[in-house]
Amino acid sequence: MSARRQSDTRDRLLRAGERLFRLKGYSGAGLKELGAEAGAPWGSIYHFFPGGKAQLGAETTRFGGELYGAAWRAAFARFDDPGEAIEWVFLSEARILEASDYRNGCPIAAVTLDTASISEDLRAACASAFALWLEILGEALRAAGAPPEAAESLAYLALSAIEGAIILARAAKSPAPLEGTGRLVRQAIDRQAASWK
Amino acid sequence: MSARRQSDTRDRLLRAGERLFRLKGYSGAGLKELGAEAGAPWGSIYHFFPGGKAQLGAETTRFGGELYGAAWRAAFARFDDPGEAIEWVFLSEARILEASDYRNGCPIAAVTLDTASISEDLRAACASAFALWLEILGEALRAAGAPPEAAESLAYLALSAIEGAIILARAAKSPAPLEGTGRLVRQAIDRQAASWK
Repeated sequence: MSARRQSDTRDRLLRAGERLFRLKGYSGAGLKELGAEAGAPWGSIYHFFPGGKAQLGAETTRFGGELYGAAWRAAFARFDDPGEAIEWVFLSEARILEASDYRNGCPIAAVTLDTASISEDLRAACASAFALWLEILGEALRAAGAPPEAAESLAYLALSAIEGAIILARAAKSPAPLEGTGRLVRQAIDRQAASWK
Repeated sequence: MSARRQSDTRDRLLRAGERLFRLKGYSGAGLKELGAEAGAPWGSIYHFFPGGKAQLGAETTRFGGELYGAAWRAAFARFDDPGEAIEWVFLSEARILEASDYRNGCPIAAVTLDTASISEDLRAACASAFALWLEILGEALRAAGAPPEAAESLAYLALSAIEGAIILARAAKSPAPLEGTGRLVRQAIDRQAASWK
């Protein structure tokens, strides 16, 4: 295989992990299924990830962290007001869930629930992805004038609320948890923002 | 087996499911491990749950729904103010996570992430558990004077936020997401409550 095709296969395996962990969790996604989803022979998983599924899981988590981190950054670039940007992410997520018949959750949450208590490497990878998103949220809030402590707690609120609302929305097959929660998170930010100006 | 011992074994299997799903997700908890955790022979799972793991999963989800529903009700019975009760639940959860070295999550969230996209029965069982908790939260907020729509959206916020904060806290092995988020959820309730009086 050329270096180019090698890197393509590795990338396809990471994307397959990201898709399957979203859909059925980390433990429910088998190596065979991951290979098939990536259009890669089963053995190639061990070629690119000698540590097997745990290594693929940790690297998929890093890949997903960057991917969704870029989406958060794009939202903050699109709207001047961080509360508006954050509510827009809740509403976008509601539309994505509707379009997928509520099949697509957050891959990092899925890996956390299946592995945080049994694999220190996977837990640490999930912690890094969440820390990256919290930093992006906090930075946008500080840029809008939030004092550091307020930015940190509002980032916790916004990220916790969207992660939980995705779970409630998937279980109920309804956009209502994301819509209702997103509106109140925006209100919480707007109310504090009044004192930043 | 006497009827009494039969019912004990069934109950132990449900409790084992609840503990293991919290710890390592639905897909990661094998039938053998569930039997061992319950101190029950492997075959007894099919005796009590002829539908196998999927049926045990759905009934464990109902069992967990009632169990944590009772805990929400106890919190609202303990504090007159629903915002205070809800923040207390966030802080209690932080202490429970610290005491378990952040191993214990929410079993219903874990079952949702592993199964909502692949089993309609398990998804519906998770939806019922969340609906029960939302109803208990909404009822406490309405009893404090919240109009029905405000009670519904605040219940979505509180439940989404605690579910998400538990995931962030487990990944980071830190109580900070629960503490920061709980304080802001209480503020959101208190601010709205000022207009209910």
